Amino acid sequence: MPAGYETDYRLDDSAANVHIGGWDNSLDPVRTVESGAVVEFECRGAPDGAFDRDSTAEDIGAMSFEGHPLTGPVHVEGAQPGDVLEIELLDFEHKGFGVTYFYPAAASKGLLPAEFDEPGLHIWELDDGVGRFVDGIEVPLDPFPGIAGVAPAEDGEHSTTPPRRVGGNLDIKHLTAGSTLYLPVEVAGALFSIGDCHGAQGDGEVCVTGIEAPMFVTARLSVRSNPDIDQPRFETTGPFSPTGADEPVYGTTGVADSLMEATKLAVEQMIDHLHEHRGLTRTEAYLLCSAAVDLKINQVVNHPTWTVSAYLSESLFPG
Amino acid sequence: MPAGYETDYRLDDSAANVHIGGWDNSLDPVRTVESGAVVEFECRGAPDGAFDRDSTAEDIGAMSFEGHPLTGPVHVEGAQPGDVLEIELLDFEHKGFGVTYFYPAAASKGLLPAEFDEPGLHIWELDDGVGRFVDGIEVPLDPFPGIAGVAPAEDGEHSTTPPRRVGGNLDIKHLTAGSTLYLPVEVAGALFSIGDCHGAQGDGEVCVTGIEAPMFVTARLSVRSNPDIDQPRFETTGPFSPTGADEPVYGTTGVADSLMEATKLAVEQMIDHLHEHRGLTRTEAYLLCSAAVDLKINQVVNHPTWTVSAYLSESLFPG
Repeated sequence: MPAGYETDYRLDDSAANVHIGGWDNSLDPVRTVESGAVVEFECRGAPDGAFDRDSTAEDIGAMSFEGHPLTGPVHVEGAQPGDVLEIELLDFEHKGFGVTYFYPAAASKGLLPAEFDEPGLHIWELDDGVGRFVDGIEVPLDPFPGIAGVAPAEDGEHSTTPPRRVGGNLDIKHLTAGSTLYLPVEVAGALFSIGDCHGAQGDGEVCVTGIEAPMFVTARLSVRSNPDIDQPRFETTGPFSPTGADEPVYGTTGVADSLMEATKLAVEQMIDHLHEHRGLTRTEAYLLCSAAVDLKINQVVNHPTWTVSAYLSESLFPG
Repeated sequence: MPAGYETDYRLDDSAANVHIGGWDNSLDPVRTVESGAVVEFECRGAPDGAFDRDSTAEDIGAMSFEGHPLTGPVHVEGAQPGDVLEIELLDFEHKGFGVTYFYPAAASKGLLPAEFDEPGLHIWELDDGVGRFVDGIEVPLDPFPGIAGVAPAEDGEHSTTPPRRVGGNLDIKHLTAGSTLYLPVEVAGALFSIGDCHGAQGDGEVCVTGIEAPMFVTARLSVRSNPDIDQPRFETTGPFSPTGADEPVYGTTGVADSLMEATKLAVEQMIDHLHEHRGLTRTEAYLLCSAAVDLKINQVVNHPTWTVSAYLSESLFPG
């Protein structure tokens, strides 16, 4: 936890501080803060209380999803269109419990909807810095906000699902404690909201969820006049592998003439590997890929086929 | 350098051991070896002697490219279609010199052909484990073969540029010494060739070249009957960052409804950053991105927009 800050404002996750329907620049701010203020946001999980420790995949059918619950919006004094909102991520505190799942609607089954007809779910105990999967597999926790964004200039209500140039559902797993996110401001006051926290996630988030977990997030919000940015930027120290250092990794590669197809091939092969050589069911494999397998673009220039690989750290498995 | 091997065969880079026109299962093997043999391959650089230490971007116009020069093919006894060729990468030795460039033909200007009308080139001195760029910037060297592949079953000559399910121009930067690559075999004897070595490369290889360098590569070639693979797979310990550990990184993000467009946005922003805040020309920035900036797929499931980010390690710059 970074030292040297005091919390200036606290926003709990009660209905008065949370919006669910989407991004909308006409929402009333739940708080107005000065530039440089440190705010603690209590964030609901993406499934917003739909699951508890005893939930199973059968409970997914009863779930309704009207949008990610986000804490905010916070009006930051002085922010104007063209400015940059700097978000220093100071601290994350989970509540001991998380969930990874995919559900039957096509777009909610992630990267490989045709291959997974049944819903899948895993309840994670979060403890001692790890999330516990099946068969003794442990995923190190490095919490981050799946969603951090400011309101778009375009009027109306905008879905929380797709990210935008002003941020939102970016799912950049490296926005861990100690990292700083920069977002282009489009409306007065920026109107910052945050939520959808993940205890961990693989680059790609392939089954559609990370380790979804309610969490307290503490962040310092500052208005900057530069750099002039068109899209989000950030500073981080990772982690870039589960242990934060080089370690043995198994990789599967997809070669295809679209990046999306290459990505699917890489992930399909990783699911095959986890099923055939690590004894996971295909559903468990898909869930684990989403929580802990990283996608990297190896090359995007060798016309007409590109290379994408999926990376599985051996350190996830019991010795 | 991994210990515990003796070289069984040496193939120098003379014309008798090198093929340039493409992949072709009718090429005569330059050597037949037993499964488990350790072979040293002397590999020409991708530009095949077109540049020397005094070359400049003006020399690119005179360059002709008829395909990557590859050392091989090597017939591995016993390999049959459906088998797997295991390639243990044991050692790399460069010759002190490398080059990164893009050239005027559209497909040879990499990810951003519309933005770079003039050719670009940097000659790297390779020394003490680093390649030297401009302004004191040093890129750590972790050599790997840009191309490693076996012959496709389909008859005829096939370009060396695109990778295939049997490998080829994969440009997986993590295939460093100590790593193992697995390729599906499509023809008797596998017919393995290797070349296009890079001293370093960013994930993505965005300007179209890494640090292209002639090199000696030592590898053990073994025939395996499993796993049953459809595409390449590999084992590696990275490095996953220039220092092999977590370190400060600056990230730029692209959000778009195609992975390719998101990738372009991320790289364009990184070039902006390197130009505006690190003092590089845009051409230098593009070259450095190709040699040392990593592309990661952050999420590929938040319909209809995906997130791709480019990662620049601060450790490249002089303190």
